[in-house]
Amino acid sequence: MRQKLIHSGIHLFDRKGFTETSIEDITNELQVTKGTFYYYFKSKQELLRDIHLGYIEFLLKTQEEILNDPSKDSRAKLRATIFMLIHSIQNQKKSARIFFREMRNLAPEYLEQNMEKRDLFRKNVQQIVEEGIREGYFQENLNADMITRGILGVTNWSYYWFHPEGEVSDEQLTDIYLEMILNGINKKE
Amino acid sequence: MRQKLIHSGIHLFDRKGFTETSIEDITNELQVTKGTFYYYFKSKQELLRDIHLGYIEFLLKTQEEILNDPSKDSRAKLRATIFMLIHSIQNQKKSARIFFREMRNLAPEYLEQNMEKRDLFRKNVQQIVEEGIREGYFQENLNADMITRGILGVTNWSYYWFHPEGEVSDEQLTDIYLEMILNGINKKE
Repeated sequence: MRQKLIHSGIHLFDRKGFTETSIEDITNELQVTKGTFYYYFKSKQELLRDIHLGYIEFLLKTQEEILNDPSKDSRAKLRATIFMLIHSIQNQKKSARIFFREMRNLAPEYLEQNMEKRDLFRKNVQQIVEEGIREGYFQENLNADMITRGILGVTNWSYYWFHPEGEVSDEQLTDIYLEMILNGINKKE
Repeated sequence: MRQKLIHSGIHLFDRKGFTETSIEDITNELQVTKGTFYYYFKSKQELLRDIHLGYIEFLLKTQEEILNDPSKDSRAKLRATIFMLIHSIQNQKKSARIFFREMRNLAPEYLEQNMEKRDLFRKNVQQIVEEGIREGYFQENLNADMITRGILGVTNWSYYWFHPEGEVSDEQLTDIYLEMILNGINKKE
């Protein structure tokens, strides 16, 4: 039931917005009582927090596997990161949208919890960039912080427009963006 | 007065959200009557539309100057585009945030109007990429559409985190991202 409530919350928050969705909308959709809702969540806020946490924890878990994969050098880790972010749109599009759009509706203590995890995710990506500099793959004078935010811009922005069922697949888009980030668009001599 | 109402709308929509802000909140802030509001706008929706239009039309106007500048080749046009987007955060941060966040609160006919202008903006950037390919600056086999969306991802994402008063200025960030997009982060042989 908890998963059903989360699923229904994701669906309704995405379609109507968090503020415009009532707990009754959620319980009506599932044909359960409000008591059922309150058995699992203290409030609509708490449901929103759990949607956010579920999404960011999924990303962090996948990221950990990438970071700890001894068969991958920093470039391969970067590719896997870009692919993970683009690919997760397919499965988690609504969660991702709610994540970015409804952030400001989180209570301060929930928001802080969330920001810490987001920062951790970003710093882990930055670690890959720094590893690549140390390993001699990437340029020494890079601003790793700004480059990391640029890379996340490329991938996160795709949530607004990318349709994996379109003419470019998630694998292809990953390759296009990895190539742009590694080698740029300038013609080589 | 129209400008004051727009300014107050931007401020309140950004802080409280569009749905949570009433026309009364806006007129109270300016200490004017509701009649004053309705003299300039038919509805809160129309105010939101005008905030969006004002923002996208400002970007389109600046873009036109870049595109028609005969002294700029495609690389210089790309730099000017990236700078315009990063720089406009400084002055238009709230408009930009409302633009992306409250899109879904626009009525369908307003949304369509807005989307057309956004598409025009994106296609103008794509034109720069295609010009660069024709002029022999950029690689011939680029997917100009996807590359354009990637470039816009880098710049648009900065709305979420960039503080121009931080340790990296808008000029510096423009150079970091232009360099990444043109030449990539790989170490050159």
